[in-house]
Amino acid sequence: MNILVTAGGTSEKIDNVRSITNHSTGRLGKAISEEFLAHGHQVTYLTTPYAVKPEQSEHVTIEQIETTEDLLSKMNQLLSEQVFDGIIHSMAVSDFSSETSIPEEALTTALAKSLADQQDFTQSALEETVKKVMEQLGTQEQKEKKISSNTERLLLFLKKNPKIISIIREKQPTTVLVGFKLLVGVSENELINVGTTTLKKNQCDFVLANNLETIHGEKHRGILIHSDGQTETAETKQAIAQLIVRNVEMKGANHS
Amino acid sequence: MNILVTAGGTSEKIDNVRSITNHSTGRLGKAISEEFLAHGHQVTYLTTPYAVKPEQSEHVTIEQIETTEDLLSKMNQLLSEQVFDGIIHSMAVSDFSSETSIPEEALTTALAKSLADQQDFTQSALEETVKKVMEQLGTQEQKEKKISSNTERLLLFLKKNPKIISIIREKQPTTVLVGFKLLVGVSENELINVGTTTLKKNQCDFVLANNLETIHGEKHRGILIHSDGQTETAETKQAIAQLIVRNVEMKGANHS
Repeated sequence: MNILVTAGGTSEKIDNVRSITNHSTGRLGKAISEEFLAHGHQVTYLTTPYAVKPEQSEHVTIEQIETTEDLLSKMNQLLSEQVFDGIIHSMAVSDFSSETSIPEEALTTALAKSLADQQDFTQSALEETVKKVMEQLGTQEQKEKKISSNTERLLLFLKKNPKIISIIREKQPTTVLVGFKLLVGVSENELINVGTTTLKKNQCDFVLANNLETIHGEKHRGILIHSDGQTETAETKQAIAQLIVRNVEMKGANHS
Repeated sequence: MNILVTAGGTSEKIDNVRSITNHSTGRLGKAISEEFLAHGHQVTYLTTPYAVKPEQSEHVTIEQIETTEDLLSKMNQLLSEQVFDGIIHSMAVSDFSSETSIPEEALTTALAKSLADQQDFTQSALEETVKKVMEQLGTQEQKEKKISSNTERLLLFLKKNPKIISIIREKQPTTVLVGFKLLVGVSENELINVGTTTLKKNQCDFVLANNLETIHGEKHRGILIHSDGQTETAETKQAIAQLIVRNVEMKGANHS
């Protein structure tokens, strides 16, 4: 099978010297790739600079990106050049990227100035004005190439990134798609509920749901949610990798 | 001489899976350490996980930290345990750490609610109210262990970190202290002005001022500002390292 695995975590620039980074060692993605390679499949491995990578071989092509924007364009390129039998999207993708930053004093002054001109002081009218000012400030271009540290409190405006996984099914209707959902400190029930929502929304075949609090080195509890609601559980990265490869192979065989 | 070199860049957690990171390869700090080691000095090297490090040897002790808070406590420990003849503080330290995050809608609603109760609509009274609401929201504890992506725009409240360099002179009055100032896209004049301000404010003996736009791999333009206003310029990391070691040795010899 021709497999695409994404792993690692994206970074979003705040200015020329700082970014917001999603932490991910890439070790689970590496284990999944190695399991696919051990089963004789061809792997394209899309990852980020600081994540671990599978060893170079003729059966693996390694591609590297940094930001969500990079990921989107690399993904579009790969999905239009090749047909993948399976796509395992384990990369931790930034939900937000930085739009602008503003010292708290500047935001307070701008708000007060606009509000002082206000005629109508009902809550809804006030809300409208506040919204307009935030919109203006939030979307103005970041002027400084390096944010000044000359304020006690800084507000960073972050805007939502496009959900990369939502474009996959559209471009590759027959691929076996495995999504990932990482939550922190939730019950197993909630984990499965949120994972199932992710599965349905993005038309995945499977979602691997996991909780940061049950990941400790090689020990890694993962719940593989199937599109029919069935779940399977694994307790190590190795076991998760085996679970995913086995299910992608079975589903892929049914497709063809 | 007994030398402390800090290098790399600190990271500040936003939640359990994201941080704000200051990028720094640590290559300049490594070059400086190696130059001190080549001159027979003893080096304590304080760095961060993703930065390059000098080779292990009996003449170098490597210490690692992640956040500004870690740095502060490690620095306090080192400065109370040892007397350093020279301290080269090249680490890129986060100016801000994350206090809390709030969806834009929630901030807008909270502001409008407080303002609707307002009696006095002068700009200064409005400013006071906005300030109070921001203070309340900005300092409330981050409830989510992982920020929800369920909003189009998120506001991140960042508060200023303590300036680590300002504690060094107090604890080690006789050390030869070299500070660093990295700016982006400023004139050489402004670079020297800002560097001189840093030097005076933190009672440094020297400040190495540099501009991100004149750093390309080994090529690295740096201006060493002396406390008497004299400046010396170097064009590579190697040359900056030599400049710093020579000046720290000379100043150290004058001290003793």
